[in-house]
Amino acid sequence: MKCRKCSETAIINMRQHKLALCQEHFLEWMPEQTQRFIEKYKMFDHADKILVAVSGGKDSLSLWDILRRLGYQADGLYIGLGIEGGIGYSDESRRLSEHFAAEHGLKLNVVEVESTYGATIPELAVISNRGHGKPCSVCGLSKRYIMNRAAHDGDYTVLATGHNLDDEAAVLMQNTLNWAGSYLVRQAPVLEASRPGLARKVKPLCRFYEREMAAYAIVRGIEYIYDECPHAVGSTTIYYKEVLNQMEEKRPGAKLQFYLSFLQAKEQGLFALKAADAELHPCEKCGQPTSAPGECSFCRMWDKVREVKGARLPAEAGLVQIES
Amino acid sequence: MKCRKCSETAIINMRQHKLALCQEHFLEWMPEQTQRFIEKYKMFDHADKILVAVSGGKDSLSLWDILRRLGYQADGLYIGLGIEGGIGYSDESRRLSEHFAAEHGLKLNVVEVESTYGATIPELAVISNRGHGKPCSVCGLSKRYIMNRAAHDGDYTVLATGHNLDDEAAVLMQNTLNWAGSYLVRQAPVLEASRPGLARKVKPLCRFYEREMAAYAIVRGIEYIYDECPHAVGSTTIYYKEVLNQMEEKRPGAKLQFYLSFLQAKEQGLFALKAADAELHPCEKCGQPTSAPGECSFCRMWDKVREVKGARLPAEAGLVQIES
Repeated sequence: MKCRKCSETAIINMRQHKLALCQEHFLEWMPEQTQRFIEKYKMFDHADKILVAVSGGKDSLSLWDILRRLGYQADGLYIGLGIEGGIGYSDESRRLSEHFAAEHGLKLNVVEVESTYGATIPELAVISNRGHGKPCSVCGLSKRYIMNRAAHDGDYTVLATGHNLDDEAAVLMQNTLNWAGSYLVRQAPVLEASRPGLARKVKPLCRFYEREMAAYAIVRGIEYIYDECPHAVGSTTIYYKEVLNQMEEKRPGAKLQFYLSFLQAKEQGLFALKAADAELHPCEKCGQPTSAPGECSFCRMWDKVREVKGARLPAEAGLVQIES
Repeated sequence: MKCRKCSETAIINMRQHKLALCQEHFLEWMPEQTQRFIEKYKMFDHADKILVAVSGGKDSLSLWDILRRLGYQADGLYIGLGIEGGIGYSDESRRLSEHFAAEHGLKLNVVEVESTYGATIPELAVISNRGHGKPCSVCGLSKRYIMNRAAHDGDYTVLATGHNLDDEAAVLMQNTLNWAGSYLVRQAPVLEASRPGLARKVKPLCRFYEREMAAYAIVRGIEYIYDECPHAVGSTTIYYKEVLNQMEEKRPGAKLQFYLSFLQAKEQGLFALKAADAELHPCEKCGQPTSAPGECSFCRMWDKVREVKGARLPAEAGLVQIES
């Protein structure tokens, strides 16, 4: 197959766009498209100070790479979750994130959950007794908290995550199968900072397929961690990705159409509910915005850990430590 | 496996309800549940004069059987579509519908499309050039028109169709994957007769799985046509049924949950759009309500046939002929 732009041999064929591209033109096309999405969804501009959440995976490192190539001011945030899973998952993720930052002379903020708060995510999941034996719920809660806080404390104007279209479509499928209205109205490429202390969140890759992101990382020579998080194995998100890929196989463009027609229907006023936040107030302990009465769920979770582990918690528990 | 109610051997295990039943209790349970749905969705009562659309398949004949067993006044409507498909599909469907009516002393109205209007559905599809070579779109339009008109002309207060949960969930999936708002807000167990001349439409079986309907028909000894319509092979609806059955396999109750949470979300006001009908007016030719300017799409379709086939059309074209 030939490249649409120059007739060289194509390295990727994107059936949903009826577009095949060679290496050179694919590497041009990705940032061009990203820039288009950034403008279309009014994500940020060159005056913004962007914090990119990096996990060491293909999506977030490629996002950082693309933003850098587009000339945006983008620092990284790596959150050490203490996940081992027999493959040294977190250590390797950190190493690759640091490697990328050093290679490109970028600033990476690091928050290690264990040294900052006193336990790894898997330990926290056991102690807090949330999430039915899987650490995913505790992990999600912790990452949201830390990302938000790091963006706020570091005076970043926007927090960017590497969610791709497969991620977004899978979550949309999950929320649609249960018709979870409050989640449906909130899912968008941009989540506005509707309250002081809440970071503005954006997903510049939300229209790229997972395979495009993998192709980009590989062709750009970005070293990333190939493994999924060991705890994600068998997750519903992965299952819905498979279901959507099956539909995509049968009808190219099906998963993009699913996501884009959702965004369009929402913009055209399909839903009566708005993505209005619940009444938020500052957490009594950490001051971050929360809808829970008194302390936020993150602080309450660590209160419980403190009861169990007692004096073994570090003194600075509750404070985010950012190393540059 | 034992029957939940009497410990006899179960003939069916409904995993979504965690309910296994023996033949006797399953045959009791089906009308009980149907009665529950009729009341829950305020479909009709014993004073209503019901027209059941029967196709000769398991769903519609079982629906007629159940309504009869529940003591409702329910006549049948068989629409002869002239589908051959190498298996005499329409002839066999009519024979089985007549057989059921005769066996139970019920009244069956019959409308043969060819003798009433002058062409079979497959001919009509070719001549009218709608639906990209498949007769399904023309067939749907014609059936909706004829059902509505037969209900109106026969003074029926409600039109009942045999759509089961698999049908409803597949249509919902299709409309959701495209976020077709106007279809989503209209999908419901009851479609009110919002304009004079429009029949009130109900789907009393909308919460039964297809396999329950097949089990009911078989156990009741109802003779029905096993084949799908030959034109339905490879349809998107059948594809989405397969996708949903796969999800059901992995998570029993998934397709019921998908449909019921949709109805619930809608009732709780998820959608801003209402199922308000477009502005309707009487068709200039047949007087049935239509949103199209001038003549309704059904009459316009036959105008085209008349142009092509000319004098070969019967004189009464445009009038529904009901034989008892």
